[in-house]
Amino acid sequence: MERTLIGELGKHAGTTVSISGWVDVRRDQGKMVFFDFRDRSGVVQGVVLPGSAAIEIAKEIKTEYVVQVKGLVNKRPEKNIQAGKQNGDIELEIKDITVLAKAEVLPFPKDEEVNLDTRLDNRPLTLRSGRERAIFSVQATIVDAYRRSLQKQGFTEFQAPGLVGGDAEGGAAVFKVGYYDHPAAYLATSPQLYKQIMVGAFERVLTIAKVFRAEKSSTTRHLSESTQMDFEMGFIKDETDVMAVLETVIRDVVAEVSEKHTNAFTLFSTEAPKLGEKFPMLTLREAQKILGSDEDDMDPDGERKICEWALKEHGSDFVFITKFPAAVRAFYTMPDEAAGAGLSRGFDLLFRGLEINSGAQRIHNYGEMVARFEKRGMDPNKFSFYLQAFKYGMPPHGGCSTGLDRFTMKMLNLANIREASLFPRDMNRIDTRLSLDIPLTEG
Amino acid sequence: MERTLIGELGKHAGTTVSISGWVDVRRDQGKMVFFDFRDRSGVVQGVVLPGSAAIEIAKEIKTEYVVQVKGLVNKRPEKNIQAGKQNGDIELEIKDITVLAKAEVLPFPKDEEVNLDTRLDNRPLTLRSGRERAIFSVQATIVDAYRRSLQKQGFTEFQAPGLVGGDAEGGAAVFKVGYYDHPAAYLATSPQLYKQIMVGAFERVLTIAKVFRAEKSSTTRHLSESTQMDFEMGFIKDETDVMAVLETVIRDVVAEVSEKHTNAFTLFSTEAPKLGEKFPMLTLREAQKILGSDEDDMDPDGERKICEWALKEHGSDFVFITKFPAAVRAFYTMPDEAAGAGLSRGFDLLFRGLEINSGAQRIHNYGEMVARFEKRGMDPNKFSFYLQAFKYGMPPHGGCSTGLDRFTMKMLNLANIREASLFPRDMNRIDTRLSLDIPLTEG
Repeated sequence: MERTLIGELGKHAGTTVSISGWVDVRRDQGKMVFFDFRDRSGVVQGVVLPGSAAIEIAKEIKTEYVVQVKGLVNKRPEKNIQAGKQNGDIELEIKDITVLAKAEVLPFPKDEEVNLDTRLDNRPLTLRSGRERAIFSVQATIVDAYRRSLQKQGFTEFQAPGLVGGDAEGGAAVFKVGYYDHPAAYLATSPQLYKQIMVGAFERVLTIAKVFRAEKSSTTRHLSESTQMDFEMGFIKDETDVMAVLETVIRDVVAEVSEKHTNAFTLFSTEAPKLGEKFPMLTLREAQKILGSDEDDMDPDGERKICEWALKEHGSDFVFITKFPAAVRAFYTMPDEAAGAGLSRGFDLLFRGLEINSGAQRIHNYGEMVARFEKRGMDPNKFSFYLQAFKYGMPPHGGCSTGLDRFTMKMLNLANIREASLFPRDMNRIDTRLSLDIPLTEG
Repeated sequence: MERTLIGELGKHAGTTVSISGWVDVRRDQGKMVFFDFRDRSGVVQGVVLPGSAAIEIAKEIKTEYVVQVKGLVNKRPEKNIQAGKQNGDIELEIKDITVLAKAEVLPFPKDEEVNLDTRLDNRPLTLRSGRERAIFSVQATIVDAYRRSLQKQGFTEFQAPGLVGGDAEGGAAVFKVGYYDHPAAYLATSPQLYKQIMVGAFERVLTIAKVFRAEKSSTTRHLSESTQMDFEMGFIKDETDVMAVLETVIRDVVAEVSEKHTNAFTLFSTEAPKLGEKFPMLTLREAQKILGSDEDDMDPDGERKICEWALKEHGSDFVFITKFPAAVRAFYTMPDEAAGAGLSRGFDLLFRGLEINSGAQRIHNYGEMVARFEKRGMDPNKFSFYLQAFKYGMPPHGGCSTGLDRFTMKMLNLANIREASLFPRDMNRIDTRLSLDIPLTEG
């Protein structure tokens, strides 16, 4: 018999079907055994009635067993309907169960709230909980909606390299890789230089890339490996063109997540992000005035407070901060002396108290770029490959980068970025805890 | 004046527009100067007529200058229409040119056929040629169509890690990464173990992942870093379910590339891949019979010959080879003793003479997986994280992996895989040639 997906059972009332999935819950009531079965499309309740031929096997089955179940799809009597619940109006009367795979006794119930380290130590199991599946379903929608919004706006996707010859940003701590007999290679800290090179050929490009930062920090906002959603575009007037594209993308993402994952917002006791009419835009100086501060950058506390202000004053969970000092931005950032001495065309997008995106108009003039290297004490000869893009005609351009893990974290109001990364890597963990006795395997 | 994309000019005949782009070609005829301008949407011819105010600046402009051009869109007289060419029926009568960025004299014309090393040394420039842009436009379509076909079939996308604790495949040479104060970490050679873990939670998953192999080989088919398009699915009957999904995906990809990139096939003197009615399927033994060979695996020459056979006999550029000996496949491959002693449920998909995809049904029983580790002399304790997925109930499952660079290479009949990778990495190159005096930069 063909498999029917659990999410489709409503259409099959009164008929006998075959489903496949996991035993999500099992309740033994002596003469009867109740199950919740789970597959990729949802959950349904099944019951083995007294005297059923399936009662023997039902007694042996445990949580997380993988089973194939034949049964009759019964409409529930009115009084037993669980309104608002998937398949709340039907029940599967189980006729036959085949065990496809057994499961050992779980170390703890998969939906139990355990501390984060335990959750990550047991990732292959805890991923099966409704909570974790909701997070990474939302994340899949974010990536997909982000990419599609950019494609609609004329962007071409490309694959940025993970292995690089040097540390492009010139600041972040980098991981060193043994590369054949050569001195070393490095892991990319950003696809920045490559997306600029791509602007010279495709004008508007996007990439979903892994970035690696060897920062010796264990905050709730940093990972050694994370996923960045980058775009870069040519022929801009200034950075506000980039911000306009980004705002469209963010609105498209929020709309799609809201449409597909209403339940996820409920599950995490939060709501769909508020978008206001337009994302408010403050220069760093204006933001500092609101905060009563005098700093040249914004600390995590400032980010939180300015987001509270944006929500209160503009009904928006998002707020742009613009005109950062050039000194705190990467070398390729376009200066904006007209806005004030030492200022630049760099911007950040804050979301619910956290910077999730950083962008800028970039320098596009070859001579100016070479001069910038020299001013920063960097050797332009080491960047000869990158500089070709500028040497042979580069339009005014800019772009930005959204941290996927951070965006997911704030979308669902998670406390720690590790919850928003499937297999988070940090100073102390690559899958298993590095401090444990088990050595890193060499295959 | 608002920018008009060059691809939209046909709609603006008789009006004055502003376009932005690169000078693709310049032909100075003394009193008149002709240009081809290029932007992301296409190419158009422009002319500066005798006596035009723009003649002075037109004389200064060189190839690859970035310009903003105001002009009148004129319909060409019937006799001057270039049929079948984009904008072949119009010409831009140039009124004004603004230079947005200058370009130095090119080391060689960007569309000139130069040898591969020169092409890669000058990647930021050569990427601008029609040839290179066609390759990576096709590649973007392949990735997108591949992903969308799987999404339509119920697959959830996830982000597989690039940094791993060990060498999963236990065979391929791996790159070692310095990881804080820990002994070492490694670069992923495959997302295999993670996608299997994901099957336990999402049943059907896909990932577009970077993989890194430190193979000391310089063939036309290998790179140090490449992009893999992987999927994995639960609740299969056997590997033929995986092959059926893959065939649907490949057909969807070919259909979309054919629809969007007819010109690319012409440009590379090839045709859209032939799909036949159904991809032929041969066991390795059957294939060996056809080849008159007796080997336990298939060499590149065998792959070429069996593809010739498939095209001739079945009108298909694709052919499946099944039932490989377990000994030549990865540890997690499901054995198939019923098919013959030592055989497995591993398969390859060959395309135009090259293996572009490798897949299998996998072992799903926990005890069988542990036994397999031991049989291969591998320590199951080192795989405790991965093994959790099996311990807690894993359905019969399988999946496969398509090499994006290889698929692109064969789609356009390219001679070398380096042509199908934007920024290819190998033993001798990371952007620049590693053998040159220029050291790898440290930022």
